[in-house]
Amino acid sequence: MISRRVVIVGGVAGGASCAARLRRLDENAEIYVFERGGFVSFANCGLPYYIGGVISPRERLLVASPERFRDYFNVEVRVNHEVTRIDRENRLVEVRNRQTGARFTRPYDALVLAPGAKPIVPDVPGVDLPGVFTLRLLEDAERIYRWLQDRHVTRAVVVGAGYIGLEMVENLANRNITVTVVEAAPQILPGFDPEMVVPIYDKLAAHDVRLLLGHPLQAIEADGSQLLVTAGGEKIDCGAVILSVGVRPDVTLAQEAGLEIGPLGGIRVNEHMQTSDPTIWAVGDAVEVKDLVTGQPTWVPLAGPASRQARVAADNICGRPSRFPGALGTAFVRVFGVDIAKTGLTEKAAQRAGIPYQKSFTHSASHATYYPGAKPMTIKLLFDPRDGRVLGAQAVGSEGVDKRIDVIAAMIQKGGTVYDLEEAELCYAPQVGSARDPVNIAGFVAGNILRGDVAPAHWDELDRFPEERRPFILDVRTPGEFAAGALPGAVNIPLGELRGRLHELPRDREIWVHCAGGQRSYYGVRILNQKGFRARNLSGGYSIYRAYRRGTPKSNG
Amino acid sequence: MISRRVVIVGGVAGGASCAARLRRLDENAEIYVFERGGFVSFANCGLPYYIGGVISPRERLLVASPERFRDYFNVEVRVNHEVTRIDRENRLVEVRNRQTGARFTRPYDALVLAPGAKPIVPDVPGVDLPGVFTLRLLEDAERIYRWLQDRHVTRAVVVGAGYIGLEMVENLANRNITVTVVEAAPQILPGFDPEMVVPIYDKLAAHDVRLLLGHPLQAIEADGSQLLVTAGGEKIDCGAVILSVGVRPDVTLAQEAGLEIGPLGGIRVNEHMQTSDPTIWAVGDAVEVKDLVTGQPTWVPLAGPASRQARVAADNICGRPSRFPGALGTAFVRVFGVDIAKTGLTEKAAQRAGIPYQKSFTHSASHATYYPGAKPMTIKLLFDPRDGRVLGAQAVGSEGVDKRIDVIAAMIQKGGTVYDLEEAELCYAPQVGSARDPVNIAGFVAGNILRGDVAPAHWDELDRFPEERRPFILDVRTPGEFAAGALPGAVNIPLGELRGRLHELPRDREIWVHCAGGQRSYYGVRILNQKGFRARNLSGGYSIYRAYRRGTPKSNG
Repeated sequence: MISRRVVIVGGVAGGASCAARLRRLDENAEIYVFERGGFVSFANCGLPYYIGGVISPRERLLVASPERFRDYFNVEVRVNHEVTRIDRENRLVEVRNRQTGARFTRPYDALVLAPGAKPIVPDVPGVDLPGVFTLRLLEDAERIYRWLQDRHVTRAVVVGAGYIGLEMVENLANRNITVTVVEAAPQILPGFDPEMVVPIYDKLAAHDVRLLLGHPLQAIEADGSQLLVTAGGEKIDCGAVILSVGVRPDVTLAQEAGLEIGPLGGIRVNEHMQTSDPTIWAVGDAVEVKDLVTGQPTWVPLAGPASRQARVAADNICGRPSRFPGALGTAFVRVFGVDIAKTGLTEKAAQRAGIPYQKSFTHSASHATYYPGAKPMTIKLLFDPRDGRVLGAQAVGSEGVDKRIDVIAAMIQKGGTVYDLEEAELCYAPQVGSARDPVNIAGFVAGNILRGDVAPAHWDELDRFPEERRPFILDVRTPGEFAAGALPGAVNIPLGELRGRLHELPRDREIWVHCAGGQRSYYGVRILNQKGFRARNLSGGYSIYRAYRRGTPKSNG
Repeated sequence: MISRRVVIVGGVAGGASCAARLRRLDENAEIYVFERGGFVSFANCGLPYYIGGVISPRERLLVASPERFRDYFNVEVRVNHEVTRIDRENRLVEVRNRQTGARFTRPYDALVLAPGAKPIVPDVPGVDLPGVFTLRLLEDAERIYRWLQDRHVTRAVVVGAGYIGLEMVENLANRNITVTVVEAAPQILPGFDPEMVVPIYDKLAAHDVRLLLGHPLQAIEADGSQLLVTAGGEKIDCGAVILSVGVRPDVTLAQEAGLEIGPLGGIRVNEHMQTSDPTIWAVGDAVEVKDLVTGQPTWVPLAGPASRQARVAADNICGRPSRFPGALGTAFVRVFGVDIAKTGLTEKAAQRAGIPYQKSFTHSASHATYYPGAKPMTIKLLFDPRDGRVLGAQAVGSEGVDKRIDVIAAMIQKGGTVYDLEEAELCYAPQVGSARDPVNIAGFVAGNILRGDVAPAHWDELDRFPEERRPFILDVRTPGEFAAGALPGAVNIPLGELRGRLHELPRDREIWVHCAGGQRSYYGVRILNQKGFRARNLSGGYSIYRAYRRGTPKSNG
């Protein structure tokens, strides 16, 4: 009567999805889910917002209960049950009831590992003091919530300025807690290129968040009822510390069972999500998958891919050869109203992977500027200089950022080029878009580069020129803009006057043209090139120049 | 010195874009733009919002002035100048200055027609009365604005419930004007399928908008200072009438010049936007282009395609053989906070084109439901039953609708299938998405249909069954939901009890399973099919049933 016995280790995103899919495919399977924590299928991406009081009550975080799994899916879910060992030879798992201490074994025909990732705890003194927390489980969030509440915490330190770190910063600030951020890297959100995260620095400062960049956590000490955090040679006094320096795949069980681990430290799986043992599958934050752009192994600890991997594992267990083609690493975070998102490769990642690329910066309005409320948005596009294939995109703004990254993600998924971005036919009504959407603009500018219409110059190249061979910098903004701040040595000829003042420009030097964002300078370059000058367009204009300069502030403290 | 003489007829979206692009490609061209109206490059999509006071002052609508065209692009723009005739033999146009009456000719090497579309005026008595308006030019908007203001209009009739009609309704309501809508078709927004526009009916009613559907305008009479509008046999008293029954391509000039006109009444062009005369190009609302999905001629009078067509025409005039591949007809409109959008084929359009299709309805939340503010969204997906190619999508909701349609538009553009929608890796953070985005959900449900996992049934099929062969209707919602409203004859077995009550179900009849939205019924169908029943999932659930039933209300008056 029972077709197959399936055991699933972990019942949050991947594990829960896998169980439900298995049941839909096989009404006769026996399905057990063992979850170490006290809850299944909870919304771990919501935990910072629960702590900040945005999500309330706690029950909202519970997507599905063990009872729901039984009623709808006839799946046996055991929370507070830890799988302590896999006996591959006899195909059974050893399980410990964390509440009673009881131990038992459970046989399987197919085993699914969905243990997730675990927070990295820096190896410095004091990380185990009361008041020092990591955030992974619902129980962690509750502990933090109660600690902040009971102790009336007014100052906190967040160690690590990644996604969760910054979400915690915002949510602590929502509770009127003054926050200091300690980050070892020279920038926040190290998964993004440094010039793209710059708009967030202002917002952090505006919310009185102090930022210590380039300083690893050195120690935490108890000082009466307070904690003293040492970083960058100074001691910061606070009532709570959140450690959010990152996560790593939880591969203990897999490793002990002798399953293959990949180069990035995650469980190695094939495109069917099958481990090196063909009766064991693995999904979610614990596995490495293929990077859709580079074809190399990548590690994308995000809920979306986990959910689809779970589906693929269930399919294959039930004899359907579906596959998980790979991940783009599409990601989004909102910090104090600034939205930043990416898909595919960043410039850093392209360099790391040794992938040739060209880049463009474009500034657009989130919707038609004649309609109230349009917000500026910057898109950085990476593309293949040979055929225009889109390699990655990052966008920052405060409206419509996720939309543009989603469209570009779809394009990358389908092998799209910058020419496809030019032609994208997207919603245009004044409230949500423009006749030329920011995605089109990004495509046009990249296409102009590839067609040879406009040679781009990048601000980071400028620093590499010796002073005597420095290009001529032409600023085509208005005199007013120029007066408010300009490049040292730049010459100002407003675009409207350019055709009449060509004689002021050198013919023996390269001319790098810039404006505020890159559009007027593009017009200028087209004029100059057609008139026999050697001109290049400074990509992204003065605003990207300032972002480059500010991209790695040492601290705003 | 002059490389080529280009004359452009029309200076709004297509004409203005074409002029700017021409200059960027050819610094030595002589470029003249003749615009019949008083303004170039104005935001015609903003006109209803100017009338409603949302966009103010009027100057915000002026994207670029003739002076800007001269300064930046060295383009000669003549407003209030009408091109009255094309002399193809001698390659010149005859122009009339509408302010002075002066006439002159202008020679061209290349001519670009961008005359746009003109409002259709119903052929009934009284359409030329004072107080009866169409809306196309900025001058029209000003006339309407002044009329409403000066006469203190409190009641208006909008004839035609398309995009502009409904935008006018909202903006008149914003001015505290009571509106009656007269629409000849049996539904509002005839470009959408009838069940998709249903959420807007409630909003119209909530804003005291009276709707007369299925009634063409019969006559307008003057009655003292008021107007009397006759439709559906009744007379409606009001202070202003807006005629927005649609537009048609303005092909007068092209037709008189003997250029080929296409089957839909627009100027016929090739993929280089070239008319039947190789020295004349045409772009924008006046031309027919290829439908990207069907390959048949289509007419898409929207600003986005116009802008890209203008670019292609300019390219080709300058010797670059770029092409406009076709249009999807991506469109969006917001009415009283309801967002509705589409891309590719509607069901109506697929039927008209004789394209085989399958369809699915899915309901999703605009973002993770555990985070505050998530809004429901319905997606209708059309796909090829043979290979899963996406043919079209419509979505309605109040947040994130444009994003999902834009992603699907990108997929259609790249020949994507429902399986690609399943795999789309989109931004997930609780504020903007879910681990399974609405796009993924639409893909999953369509994929389930194509893989044969769930046979869909559609509500509109139900009416076609004779009573005695009617399928068994199984409602797997909760007793509470069932009690609040259910199908006549439906049997209620909540999903959680289904496995234990299979004996209550017939084995000799097809069972059509439904719930509120389609998810629980999907689970139910999977149980039943595996247990030997013949079950189908009623697509979109009870909410689509109600939408079908309400899809063509005769009126809400």
